[in-house]
Formats: sequence, C-alpha cells, structure tokens
Amino acid sequence: MDPNRPIGVFDSGLGGLTVVRALREQLPAEKIVYLGDTARVPYGSKSAQTVERYSSMSARFLLGHDVKLLIIACNTASAYALESLRREVSVPVLGAIEPGAREAVAATRSRRIGVIGTLGTIRSRSYPKAVQSLAPDVDVHTLACPLLVPLVEEGWLGDVGALENQAAQAIVRRYLGELQARTTDADVLVLGCTHYPLLRPLLERTALSLWTKGIRLVDSAGAMARAARALLVEKDLAASERGGLECFVTDEARFEEVGSRFLGRHLEHVEKIDL
Amino acid sequence: MDPNRPIGVFDSGLGGLTVVRALREQLPAEKIVYLGDTARVPYGSKSAQTVERYSSMSARFLLGHDVKLLIIACNTASAYALESLRREVSVPVLGAIEPGAREAVAATRSRRIGVIGTLGTIRSRSYPKAVQSLAPDVDVHTLACPLLVPLVEEGWLGDVGALENQAAQAIVRRYLGELQARTTDADVLVLGCTHYPLLRPLLERTALSLWTKGIRLVDSAGAMARAARALLVEKDLAASERGGLECFVTDEARFEEVGSRFLGRHLEHVEKIDL
Repeated sequence: MDPNRPIGVFDSGLGGLTVVRALREQLPAEKIVYLGDTARVPYGSKSAQTVERYSSMSARFLLGHDVKLLIIACNTASAYALESLRREVSVPVLGAIEPGAREAVAATRSRRIGVIGTLGTIRSRSYPKAVQSLAPDVDVHTLACPLLVPLVEEGWLGDVGALENQAAQAIVRRYLGELQARTTDADVLVLGCTHYPLLRPLLERTALSLWTKGIRLVDSAGAMARAARALLVEKDLAASERGGLECFVTDEARFEEVGSRFLGRHLEHVEKIDL
Repeated sequence: MDPNRPIGVFDSGLGGLTVVRALREQLPAEKIVYLGDTARVPYGSKSAQTVERYSSMSARFLLGHDVKLLIIACNTASAYALESLRREVSVPVLGAIEPGAREAVAATRSRRIGVIGTLGTIRSRSYPKAVQSLAPDVDVHTLACPLLVPLVEEGWLGDVGALENQAAQAIVRRYLGELQARTTDADVLVLGCTHYPLLRPLLERTALSLWTKGIRLVDSAGAMARAARALLVEKDLAASERGGLECFVTDEARFEEVGSRFLGRHLEHVEKIDL
C-alpha cells in the first residue's frame, strides 16, 4: 500500500477535530481527510442500527478518498460500529475508546481510574468494559458531565472573561469534586470525550488541587493520535511527503467558528457534501 | 364535543412537562395525556420533513386517546409542524411560540422585547416572526443560551449547593448581561424554552438587577396554559370533572428523575410505548 495515502477521520460533529489536531502534532507528514456528519449530530440519542448505517456511509465516503487508515473519532459510533466496520473495510480501523483505556491502564499505579464523558458515553459503559478486558484488576469510576460539551462549544474555557471563568471553574470543580469523593485514590483521569482537550488546562489544575497525591490526565484524542502513529510505524505505512488537511461536513452551521476552536487554527478547504 | 375529554400534550422530550405543570395550575379540572418522544429527542437537529412526520405520529397517538385539544409543547415541532397538524386534525391545535409572543407584545411599553432560547429556537427566528406578525413596531432581541438546558437537566437551579449555585449564577448573569447590553430599554423578557421555568427565580432576580428600570418575565409554558384556558372557555369545552394526568414516553431513560423535576411533583402512571 502507498504510505502517502491519507488518513480518514470521521465524527458525528466537530469534536473529532481535536483528534485531527493531535494527529497533526504527532504525524505532521500525514494527509488527513476529515468528515463531520454535522447534519445528523448528535449520534448519542440514535439507535445502534442507525448509528451503524451512518458510520458505514461515512466510512465509504472516506474510502472513496483512498484512505489507508480509518479513525472513528466519535464515542457512540465507536461503541456501535467499530466491529462491523472492521469486517466491512479492508484498511485498519481505530476507535475512540480503546487507545485511552490502554494508556490509562499502563499509567495507573493505584489501579484506580476515573473517567469523565458525556451521558451517552458513560451510560454505554464503554470505558469500564475496555479497561476490564485489558486489566481485570483495575477499578473504573465514571461520571457523566453534561455541561462540559456546551461549555466548550461556547468557548468558555476558563480563560476568557470573569463570568465565563467563574462558570467554567465552578462547573469543573463541582464535577471533579464529586468524582474525587468517590475515588480518592485514583491516579489517572481519562478525558473520555473529544471536546475535553480544550478544557485540559482547567481540568488539570482542578484535578491536581483535588487529588493531592497527584493524578495524571489521559486525553482520548491524544491517545488516539499516538495509537495511530504506532500502528502506521508497525505496518510501515507512515507518510514521507508534505502533510495536509481536507475537511468535509454535511451541514455548514457554525462550522468555521466552532471547528477552528477545536482544530486550534483557522479551518480551510471545508466543503459541504450530502451523504 | 364532550368537554370532559382530555387535553393532549406532546414534546420531543420531558421539557413539555413544565407546560403540563402550568396547565394543572390553570385548569385543575382537566384530564391531560402527555407524550414525550424521548427515544428521538432532540428534534432541533432533525430535518423539517422528519419533524413533521414524528409530530404527526405523536398527534395520532393522542387523538387515539380522544383528546379535545392538542398542545405542541416543543419549539421545533411548533415551527415545522403546527400548520400541517392544523390541516390534518379536527381538534384545535396550540403551538409553543405564539402564546408567549402574544403576551410579550401585550406587556411591552417600550416596544422592545428580549427573548432567550435554545440555539435551534433562536436560529429559527420563530419569535421575531411571530412578534412581527402581531406588532410590526416591536423590536425583538434574541440570544441563544446553550448552557441553560443542561443546567436545568442537572438540577443546578441556583439553590442547591455552593458550586452549583456559583455555576448557575455566573452562567445566567453572563447570558442576560450580554442581552441587556444589546437592548438596555427592553421591558419584557420571554423565556422561550420549556426548560426555563425551573430557572425562573434566578432568571428573574438576575434580570431585575440588570434592567434597573424593571423588566417583566413571560414564560412560554405559562403563556401556553393561559392560551389553552382562554380557548377552552371560548369554545365551551372546559372540563367539570376531576382532573388527572397520564404520561407516555418512547424511551425510559432518566424519565422519572428529570420528569418529576419538570412537573414539580412525583410522576405516576408512566408507560413506555413505541410510535
């Protein structure tokens, strides 16, 4: 296979651009094709069958761009469609859960892990299941944090204005305080949602003030990029040309504003398509 | 028509129970049948055609319970499906937008109205359009407040705990402060989302501290209940028996906990159905 073929990344929305951002840091020579199914976001409230069908459509669109690796940057799609996509396509497929679970298991000494995520991700028990299959002796304590996604989408990240900061700090301290009270001896906290890397400085500061013996943050977006790099190296598929990014969305609303925030730079070459 | 037939209320989720609560206060003798399409919530991200189809299914379910009046307690469904339902069914149909717009127009002296709502409601421009058709001389200033719905669903209403209160107060002050800066002479604020009545004490306190010449809050749920009462009286359809409530949902997740909060009392007689 030509190692200069692109990597395909899809998500139900724009959060997956934090995975693209991590990929570009880890693998600057890679071309990336991103598809955000913004017309049908969120997947969290849809049936398994529907999510599987949408994921298959996204995968086929990206395979049409000749990708060498497929990355599912959406927790719900990973939970429902990873196995079926692995059967359906001939390129390797990486999901959103397993890389973060693996890094968390490798990092914990106390064998206690905390996980925060959306209501859908926490309810699906994807992280406890993934950790259980890697290391049955590790305890996983989870907490759904429904206010964090809208906080990120508003851009109130703890460093923008007095009231925004106050809101962000109170919300984060409230959630992490609840989790800390339930698992005081955790030493790893998984950020189990692609939106959360943008809150990382605030999350890290707050976590370190609560778990006074120290806690390490594992963000699932960074873990996915590191897993992608390991996989490409192992299969001798790492690119050697100039990297790049092409973005596709199924609906244009708010894409540039919110998308640029997730990507950490201005979004160019965005095209609207129908799936 | 027998005035002791029930009133039917439907919503994409549970927020519409604030309308039921207001109906029970205004019309204690009425029987109410509520349907929350919790399996397919939210409607805001779905196409007009899909929302119309789902609304028609909900309406038919309620007509099967022999309702004398149909209330659409969902902004998106009101925007997309009110006209088609009025053609489709033979009982009167009340939407979510017009009653609040009408009360706001009647209450404003300065001819300046502020409206807060979800991203979907504000983007649809339903309130400016409704006000425009009632009173072309009234200016409407709108602001989307994406953090308020998750705030209500978490139950952080400004009176539950130090960090929750701090978060709720900062969020509300941040949003209303932005709206006040854009329309300092507004004298009416419409709570254009069925979730917001639960935040009313905090919203009212904050609004009065910002619009120092005074501002009146119009909540769309209360306005719908008052419009329903006026309509039943006008058509001689007000019930004279003992009131009651029957609830149906299409998915059970979190129904009791969140639903009881919206209703203001414990939910009984909830049945899961497939549409």
